[in-house]
Amino acid sequence: MSGSTRAMTALIRARDRAAIARAVSMAERGDAEVRQLLEMLAGDPRRAYRIGITGPPGSGKSTLTMQLIRQLRGAKQSLGVIAVDPSSPFSGGALLGDRVRMSDVAADEDVFIRSMAARGALGGLAPAIADAADIFDAAGFDCVLIESVGVGQNELDIARATDTVLVVLTPESGDDVQVTKAGIMEIADIFVLNKDDRPGGDVIHAALGEMIDLQRQSRLVDSWAIPIVRTVAQEGSGVETLCAAIFEHRAFQERTHALAARRSRRTLERVKRLVQSRLEHELWSEERLHRLERELASEAASQQSAHGIAEQLFADFWQRRGPESS
Amino acid sequence: MSGSTRAMTALIRARDRAAIARAVSMAERGDAEVRQLLEMLAGDPRRAYRIGITGPPGSGKSTLTMQLIRQLRGAKQSLGVIAVDPSSPFSGGALLGDRVRMSDVAADEDVFIRSMAARGALGGLAPAIADAADIFDAAGFDCVLIESVGVGQNELDIARATDTVLVVLTPESGDDVQVTKAGIMEIADIFVLNKDDRPGGDVIHAALGEMIDLQRQSRLVDSWAIPIVRTVAQEGSGVETLCAAIFEHRAFQERTHALAARRSRRTLERVKRLVQSRLEHELWSEERLHRLERELASEAASQQSAHGIAEQLFADFWQRRGPESS
Repeated sequence: MSGSTRAMTALIRARDRAAIARAVSMAERGDAEVRQLLEMLAGDPRRAYRIGITGPPGSGKSTLTMQLIRQLRGAKQSLGVIAVDPSSPFSGGALLGDRVRMSDVAADEDVFIRSMAARGALGGLAPAIADAADIFDAAGFDCVLIESVGVGQNELDIARATDTVLVVLTPESGDDVQVTKAGIMEIADIFVLNKDDRPGGDVIHAALGEMIDLQRQSRLVDSWAIPIVRTVAQEGSGVETLCAAIFEHRAFQERTHALAARRSRRTLERVKRLVQSRLEHELWSEERLHRLERELASEAASQQSAHGIAEQLFADFWQRRGPESS
Repeated sequence: MSGSTRAMTALIRARDRAAIARAVSMAERGDAEVRQLLEMLAGDPRRAYRIGITGPPGSGKSTLTMQLIRQLRGAKQSLGVIAVDPSSPFSGGALLGDRVRMSDVAADEDVFIRSMAARGALGGLAPAIADAADIFDAAGFDCVLIESVGVGQNELDIARATDTVLVVLTPESGDDVQVTKAGIMEIADIFVLNKDDRPGGDVIHAALGEMIDLQRQSRLVDSWAIPIVRTVAQEGSGVETLCAAIFEHRAFQERTHALAARRSRRTLERVKRLVQSRLEHELWSEERLHRLERELASEAASQQSAHGIAEQLFADFWQRRGPESS
């Protein structure tokens, strides 16, 4: 096992596509072997810059991602791409009449595209995304793009996993901006106003600008000024400007040491999540869950508060002080 | 301590307003004493029917709640009310020009209204709401109303805490329905189409009806048919019908034993959350968090994967097998 894992690290470092694909699949399934693999790869220098692309369904994230890939390839960046969007053409969804062709990039040796299915569990994909990004990192890609539809928890997951977050909106998303104001402002490093050939762009541009100004007033003087980049991804217009904005944000974060802080906060949160899920796994063994269900169904339970039952369960777990099998 | 707690249980059972207020404040702060209190009250018969009222900001939830209070009082129901909405008039927000007067109900001995502030922590209010509802229950109220603005996690919290969930929409919320479709369908037992004197009501009514039909096709034959009740809360119109729908949903759930199942699922989830938060509390002591931060900042950390660091932390916690102080 350890021998084949070692062989795999060598293949990943050599950017062997089959090995990368296998490792990402392991990460997606949450295999224990992926831990060993990442531990062995941990000493490698980490170079990949991680870019998140999120926004409501229908905002054109996939087309934009495809254009970004082209633009970044033009800038000689090698790329690992993770698409979490279930409707993404990367994951089999069709973009009818799309002028941007998937096949353009699929043949490129310096681009590795991988779709991931959002699993049932809340925040279930976050660990797998982080692991996959680490694998791309070890393979020596310059950038990792993570595209995910911005619904609920997903949005935050993307923000936590990346160095620059693009929030993609369209002239039609006026109402959404109102509703999700707080959440969006928290995670956006760059706003992309896509499908800007449609009417209504100026209105939402003005609304976003106002939000950004308000936000800035409550921040430090030298904070990042969130730009709004207007694009028509289908035509490719604005994508060059968007790329420049990404590089600018990277340079800004490097200059102000915000990047190092962001990355160590990221690792802290990730470690916390990993420890917690290990604990939860130990705690909610099938046996213990069944016992709890039986207890709650019993007469005695009706005489006890939820706190009392929880306290007993906790004490029981605590006193065993080890896995149930020991 | 235990003596005064015992005295408090007697006062709560006698529906002493000061004692109830004190107990709910304890629940809000997460005081340890509240656990003791609820344990002592746990043997009491639980009669209160719990009704959740949620929906987007501006849908008129507070006015509707006020009207529901009146209507339920007319049906001789005593009421405990929890308002989690930060803009709610119950929590100090003003309803200018509102025809429904807070003072109407404030003087009523059989109504106890309490606002609660949503705390910072994710899902931070859920345990406090559950505790407060238990306190109202012990005080012998017939119904507990929980009003909360439907944003993100809040919505689910309300659904988990109650027996009937009202989702309040307005003719203006057409786009929201599209966006939050799945989430709304999951939690709504009754749709309230409020502000129905405004244009656009028929459109959203039709859209909701379609969603409900689709949903029903994928469910059991004898599942609950989600009604859509059209109201103008400001005028009080439709509120009687809404009340009837709530009682009907209650009767349906009692007839099909769905209520008992819903409540025991609720207790199960609550116990799980309580045990988990106890564990997290033990795990993330300030000392351990600081140690982790120091570790991550060190040279050695850059040679380790997040998994490796998490594994060490977990093993350390596991081997101590008890609180750090022991």
